[in-house]
Amino acid sequence: MNAGIRHLVSIDDLSLPEILELFQHAKDYAQDLRAHSHVARGLISASLFYEASTRTRLSFESSMLRLGGGVLTAADMRLSSASKGESLADTVRVVSGSYADIIVLRHASEGAAQLATEYSNVPVINAGDGSHEHPTQTLCDLYNLWIERGRIEGLHVMLAGDLRYSRTIHSFVYALARFGANIVCLPTPGFELPPYVVQRLREEFGVEPVRADGEKLGELARSCDAMYLTPQKPHQLSLFTDAKGISVEHVDAVYMTRPQTERYTSADTLPPRPMSLSKQTLSRESLRDAVVMHPLPRRDEISSDLDEDPRSIYFKQAARGVPIRMAILALLLGRLELSAPRAEVDVRYHPVALGENPCPNPTCISRTENRHVTARYKLASRFPVRGFCAYCSQELPARWVGCSTTGVYHERESAAARQIRPDHLVFFRDEAQAHALGFTTVAKPVPPGVEPEPARAAGV
Amino acid sequence: MNAGIRHLVSIDDLSLPEILELFQHAKDYAQDLRAHSHVARGLISASLFYEASTRTRLSFESSMLRLGGGVLTAADMRLSSASKGESLADTVRVVSGSYADIIVLRHASEGAAQLATEYSNVPVINAGDGSHEHPTQTLCDLYNLWIERGRIEGLHVMLAGDLRYSRTIHSFVYALARFGANIVCLPTPGFELPPYVVQRLREEFGVEPVRADGEKLGELARSCDAMYLTPQKPHQLSLFTDAKGISVEHVDAVYMTRPQTERYTSADTLPPRPMSLSKQTLSRESLRDAVVMHPLPRRDEISSDLDEDPRSIYFKQAARGVPIRMAILALLLGRLELSAPRAEVDVRYHPVALGENPCPNPTCISRTENRHVTARYKLASRFPVRGFCAYCSQELPARWVGCSTTGVYHERESAAARQIRPDHLVFFRDEAQAHALGFTTVAKPVPPGVEPEPARAAGV
Amino acid sequence: MNAGIRHLVSIDDLSLPEILELFQHAKDYAQDLRAHSHVARGLISASLFYEASTRTRLSFESSMLRLGGGVLTAADMRLSSASKGESLADTVRVVSGSYADIIVLRHASEGAAQLATEYSNVPVINAGDGSHEHPTQTLCDLYNLWIERGRIEGLHVMLAGDLRYSRTIHSFVYALARFGANIVCLPTPGFELPPYVVQRLREEFGVEPVRADGEKLGELARSCDAMYLTPQKPHQLSLFTDAKGISVEHVDAVYMTRPQTERYTSADTLPPRPMSLSKQTLSRESLRDAVVMHPLPRRDEISSDLDEDPRSIYFKQAARGVPIRMAILALLLGRLELSAPRAEVDVRYHPVALGENPCPNPTCISRTENRHVTARYKLASRFPVRGFCAYCSQELPARWVGCSTTGVYHERESAAARQIRPDHLVFFRDEAQAHALGFTTVAKPVPPGVEPEPARAAGV
Repeated sequence: MNAGIRHLVSIDDLSLPEILELFQHAKDYAQDLRAHSHVARGLISASLFYEASTRTRLSFESSMLRLGGGVLTAADMRLSSASKGESLADTVRVVSGSYADIIVLRHASEGAAQLATEYSNVPVINAGDGSHEHPTQTLCDLYNLWIERGRIEGLHVMLAGDLRYSRTIHSFVYALARFGANIVCLPTPGFELPPYVVQRLREEFGVEPVRADGEKLGELARSCDAMYLTPQKPHQLSLFTDAKGISVEHVDAVYMTRPQTERYTSADTLPPRPMSLSKQTLSRESLRDAVVMHPLPRRDEISSDLDEDPRSIYFKQAARGVPIRMAILALLLGRLELSAPRAEVDVRYHPVALGENPCPNPTCISRTENRHVTARYKLASRFPVRGFCAYCSQELPARWVGCSTTGVYHERESAAARQIRPDHLVFFRDEAQAHALGFTTVAKPVPPGVEPEPARAAGV
Repeated sequence: MNAGIRHLVSIDDLSLPEILELFQHAKDYAQDLRAHSHVARGLISASLFYEASTRTRLSFESSMLRLGGGVLTAADMRLSSASKGESLADTVRVVSGSYADIIVLRHASEGAAQLATEYSNVPVINAGDGSHEHPTQTLCDLYNLWIERGRIEGLHVMLAGDLRYSRTIHSFVYALARFGANIVCLPTPGFELPPYVVQRLREEFGVEPVRADGEKLGELARSCDAMYLTPQKPHQLSLFTDAKGISVEHVDAVYMTRPQTERYTSADTLPPRPMSLSKQTLSRESLRDAVVMHPLPRRDEISSDLDEDPRSIYFKQAARGVPIRMAILALLLGRLELSAPRAEVDVRYHPVALGENPCPNPTCISRTENRHVTARYKLASRFPVRGFCAYCSQELPARWVGCSTTGVYHERESAAARQIRPDHLVFFRDEAQAHALGFTTVAKPVPPGVEPEPARAAGV
Repeated sequence: MNAGIRHLVSIDDLSLPEILELFQHAKDYAQDLRAHSHVARGLISASLFYEASTRTRLSFESSMLRLGGGVLTAADMRLSSASKGESLADTVRVVSGSYADIIVLRHASEGAAQLATEYSNVPVINAGDGSHEHPTQTLCDLYNLWIERGRIEGLHVMLAGDLRYSRTIHSFVYALARFGANIVCLPTPGFELPPYVVQRLREEFGVEPVRADGEKLGELARSCDAMYLTPQKPHQLSLFTDAKGISVEHVDAVYMTRPQTERYTSADTLPPRPMSLSKQTLSRESLRDAVVMHPLPRRDEISSDLDEDPRSIYFKQAARGVPIRMAILALLLGRLELSAPRAEVDVRYHPVALGENPCPNPTCISRTENRHVTARYKLASRFPVRGFCAYCSQELPARWVGCSTTGVYHERESAAARQIRPDHLVFFRDEAQAHALGFTTVAKPVPPGVEPEPARAAGV
């Protein structure tokens, strides 16, 4: 709505230098959390939580109070305005009109925070949108690595458990990849990283997945195949020598996750013995120096007899959520200026020119609140044409694409497809859909007065 | 409880000059919402919400925070004290004892705020009592008209949709009538203004309803009869010339409402196509200058393609809720003095002398919390005797009335009925009820020592 | 966790001189509740409520706001983190990590607050744990007696209604006994004081229960036997002369309670006419000077026609909850220093050396959250050996006890049982349980290197 407002929807919204500068400020705040009550004086945050949460909500509200601001709480939006049928777009317009100076939003639909930014008059912070992203958790996690290890680049971070539905994991792996950390995945079978995440890691961050030998990780790796994702830049690879794959010799951090059972569909079944980190596993040589992290709440993923182990930092990790969220709030409220350069604007986003919303995700906000959303997509590659929903980041399952001005459609792998201007692109699941919209495979003569499609169509 | 405390239960509690003076203060606050944090410093408001709400609650809480006060929130009272069987009267006594300096109350029973004032040690603000009143929404609505049009008197305001159960409408029409605005009603069939509202408009505010010709309002008026309510004072009537009724030539504001389905009984059925304001209707000549208002949340009453129309002010309208509520809070907390004269005390309220509570409304607080309520009524006219419940404002359906000192009862249209002192009045649904209480139609000899009923019984 | 932190789990945590000194501070605060907003500036309290409550939560939050602090609210923890399966121990670790400077905890399990202190980095206040204790309500009640009567020692306080499940009653009788007040019990039949409470009163506070003659208490006493509990110190007994028991001649305070129906099991049935205090009963000579108290919310225990009686102080009682809670918060937050000596540390608490948790109470936190609790007990007497659960205070139903180092078990009344070191004690419901753990009745030869059980085992 207001282009000058800065939001935090995705971890991508912050450049690496900005993130590191925020860490410095967080560290300053953490010296004495009670000494910064002038920063947000006179300002108000609104917690709009469409999903139950205590940890994240209280963490944000504590941060705002510690900055001297006021807090409005709507801890269960599903029971209030939403029950009267109000759309998220309307709620955001009202709350950002005069009630609050910043909105902290949690929602069950992927892309909800993105939608909110389109209607808000104040900054929006994504405090979790479905199984999509949770950037402040990621900032907190990165901050913990930075505090504990002094750096992020080159660290070996192992992610274990439900990597599919954990939104914290998705924001986290993108950031780890950007920072040049090495990622070892130990997913519960059936709960691997979603394909769109892996694809993005490869295409945007130059990360190469390699089958890894998890034998040195003990019990944890017994029931699953380890996957090793590493930036293609040549750093630290000398550690790994196994010819068949990579052997996981040394891990800096183990990041355990909870099965996100509340998001499971009937097709998802947990193994009889869910993954759990035990004292025995942690005594493995490869994990000798590893800090143990968890976004919490945990169930049985970490045995409670590890709580007193000095490597277990999950409670410290949660405590550090306050200073880092103080820094984020201060930044977005305009009460903290960074000297680091901002992330560049991603120019690959375009509206879908015509037709049905091509997003395949039934819980994406572009489908659950379609009255207020104009379908948009990110053009990830032009050959073949591949797009991702601008809200939930899932790939558009379109084998055919058309041009809204010529009415002609092509297979997305074709050279012709490549020529279509991004803002003229139409996505078709199948040819029937193309025909239904009046598209054909042969160009009709261009009617007079319509500008012909330029051959030098705008680059990605 | 404490006669010196000022409450806001009904829009009647404020005089017109006071309302206009509050608008000036609201306008000042709105210049910079963040510059008034000294006003309520050290004071606490308590939101006691027995019905779910986000908008109204957050609007009040934001206003209190912006004034520098603290906020206690009970967002769903039905789940807490009330679930242990506590009465509203007791809750109000406790919260007003030392917890809070002002109470903001929303409740499902009509008259709840009135009851609260009888037990509270601090000011009570009615944030909606059943389908009765919602005076701060009305203040907000009037403030919007005043800002947008510079005045309220003589404006033509069209009210559309569910006029029966919308409490915002009821407070609003009384205030519009007092200000001398002209009201055009376009109710969804079956959801007209309640008879007690129309009656009060006619009897107290001299408003005359006329069947109007809604032809110029397009789609909106297609399915319903327009009703035109106009003050009997001769202003601006020159605009209207149609002999058969009034033709709606020019509308200053369209006020859309949501079907209040949560209050519907099984007897209420919505038409298959609910009323909705479209771009096409708004392009009508008569609506050319009309601002479009809605108390929100909306469903489909206003098409979202109107959101960008400059006449659509519903989001501005909500935003203006904060400065006007800041003014109200400051006034009731004693932190803002008005120079305008206060509304006169309405002397027509009396206790019901004897017998059953005559209120016919099953959701009135006088019936749902009868342990703590002494039935009271407003004597609206003496010939015939007509009373309205002091809590929910509904007319008492009494064909017979008696005198508690003589034990004689009469038809309410009789001259004898007129002679009964208001504080001796007893209301009877039927004669059997009168007989059951020992009343007769013939005066018994007055026992010695009982003062006879004076013929010059107190006037209304 | 941090031994230097001061908590308030039980009324025992405060010495009598400390309590009296807190009263002075509360009285100062009460002079002007709005004049102390510097006391907790910059500090944050977190209300973690696992059971619905309005009164207690708002009372604490108001107190914190009046002290100038900030408030985090989790009004229904069952719906948030707990619904994701998080343990209380983990939640407390997180919230006390950096979110809040003090935790106010209400929980359905007895002993929850005690458990919380074991994991918290900040002070914990018990705002009610199951049917166990509610120390701040007790402080409020004592404060009211002190304000109304000028003292507590020697007062005659009558407790009526559900004395079994009312946690407020349990904390209250311990404190009354310590202060040397005389307690008259008028329980609803079937809802007498729990045996463990009576036993503790006798054993620790030297209180002697006597059957009392309740004839002078009228209606209230009609359906139940009065019990009189009095400290064995010779004070004021001269008032009572009846040889068969004590006749209740004069009552200083009547404390009514609500049937705690939410805690009833299927075995609990209320009498058809629940106990209720009427105007008639209160007119009895013996109650002439009695103030009427109630922790609220009430249902029908006190007829509303008593509300205006000057002896009815239950609304004042609630109002006084704020200044006394302000004093408690200030004390625990380290913003108020007392000169009175602290309560001595109770050295009778020990871990259970081996085997199953012997606590018999299925709703005790030591059983509902057994992953995080090491069973502990209070050794109340050594001959016979009698222990009470350190969490819920219920007696351990162990007829046999063993020694963890010798593997021998004994009847708890035996001299041998007395010799076992408290930290070696194992509790057995029956002999089968002892055998299952490998215990025998005959000492096995002590293996070399194991230190033999010293005969001079540590005293209670």
